[in-house]
Amino acid sequence: MDKVITISREFGSGGRELGVRLAERLNIPFYDKELIHMAAEDSNIAEEAFRHYDEHIVKSLDRQFYHAFSDVYKVPMSDQIFVAQSNVIRKLADYGSCIIVGRCADMILSDSVNLFIYADMRSRVKRMLKLEPDEESGGKEMERRIREVDRKRKEYYQYYTGNSWGRAQNYHLCMDSGLAGVDGCLRAVLAYLGE
Amino acid sequence: MDKVITISREFGSGGRELGVRLAERLNIPFYDKELIHMAAEDSNIAEEAFRHYDEHIVKSLDRQFYHAFSDVYKVPMSDQIFVAQSNVIRKLADYGSCIIVGRCADMILSDSVNLFIYADMRSRVKRMLKLEPDEESGGKEMERRIREVDRKRKEYYQYYTGNSWGRAQNYHLCMDSGLAGVDGCLRAVLAYLGE
Repeated sequence: MDKVITISREFGSGGRELGVRLAERLNIPFYDKELIHMAAEDSNIAEEAFRHYDEHIVKSLDRQFYHAFSDVYKVPMSDQIFVAQSNVIRKLADYGSCIIVGRCADMILSDSVNLFIYADMRSRVKRMLKLEPDEESGGKEMERRIREVDRKRKEYYQYYTGNSWGRAQNYHLCMDSGLAGVDGCLRAVLAYLGE
Repeated sequence: MDKVITISREFGSGGRELGVRLAERLNIPFYDKELIHMAAEDSNIAEEAFRHYDEHIVKSLDRQFYHAFSDVYKVPMSDQIFVAQSNVIRKLADYGSCIIVGRCADMILSDSVNLFIYADMRSRVKRMLKLEPDEESGGKEMERRIREVDRKRKEYYQYYTGNSWGRAQNYHLCMDSGLAGVDGCLRAVLAYLGE
């Protein structure tokens, strides 16, 4: 049977790595940033706009501004982009088993297995500094960036789904990668799924 | 190394069963209702009072009433009971590896591995009706009972910890037993712990 798995994640907790490795193990496709390109191809909206609005909502003043550039129905660009991405997510899920990271896929799809991965701030800063060793501004700046990305993802999720980001009951399995690492989380998902 | 595991759970989701089976697999003691008896033995409070106040807080009017029967420090009975149970939980954790169900143990202890187990209402009603086949009032009444117990547990947890019950980041691993059953959750915990 087809298995569509969505991964919601706190920034720096290893959600993308978990998705890539899980996709390899299950031998199914993986979509994260790829969704941006696919949604742009699938719609008449420029890829640049997708990058600009990816997983964050637009504040009211910006909304008025971008309104002017929106189509005749005056639907704000960020909403058009959400709809275009949702359409691509639904098409991918209809097509067969896959793993989709972020972009409210857990709420857009109805039969997916939904994962949430998170970690304490210290583990996430350490992980990100290891992934981006050229980052010279250090831990404090990384912590600020992590909080900022999380805030945007949370706002985006709550705006488009009306649900609380990180409420356990919204997902089937929620894992702290700070304690068990991405390795431990990967083992847990495979065991939970009976793989 | 000692491993203390706490299990928070929605009523009917199989938290107790998960704890019992996990304790068997890890060959460590398991505490749930047993805590009531132990806390009563450890304090000068009657076991009956522990049963009465187990995992629910007392509303303001009741508080005034029970106040009169409290000790000279005028600490409400429900708070005295919380303190007595917390002391027992800390002693058990100091003593060695164990599994503790409910009673805010995740917030009382600092180095525990904290699990949260939950499920959709339909799965929980089905599970409880199977466990209590003599229950003649049926699904509707069971659903009412589940909501009532959950509400009390949630209030109790939030009152004594100041934290949100069911917020994924409060726990290391959160599992929906509706999708994978207690079997799947048990496999996931063991895999996550590297057992």
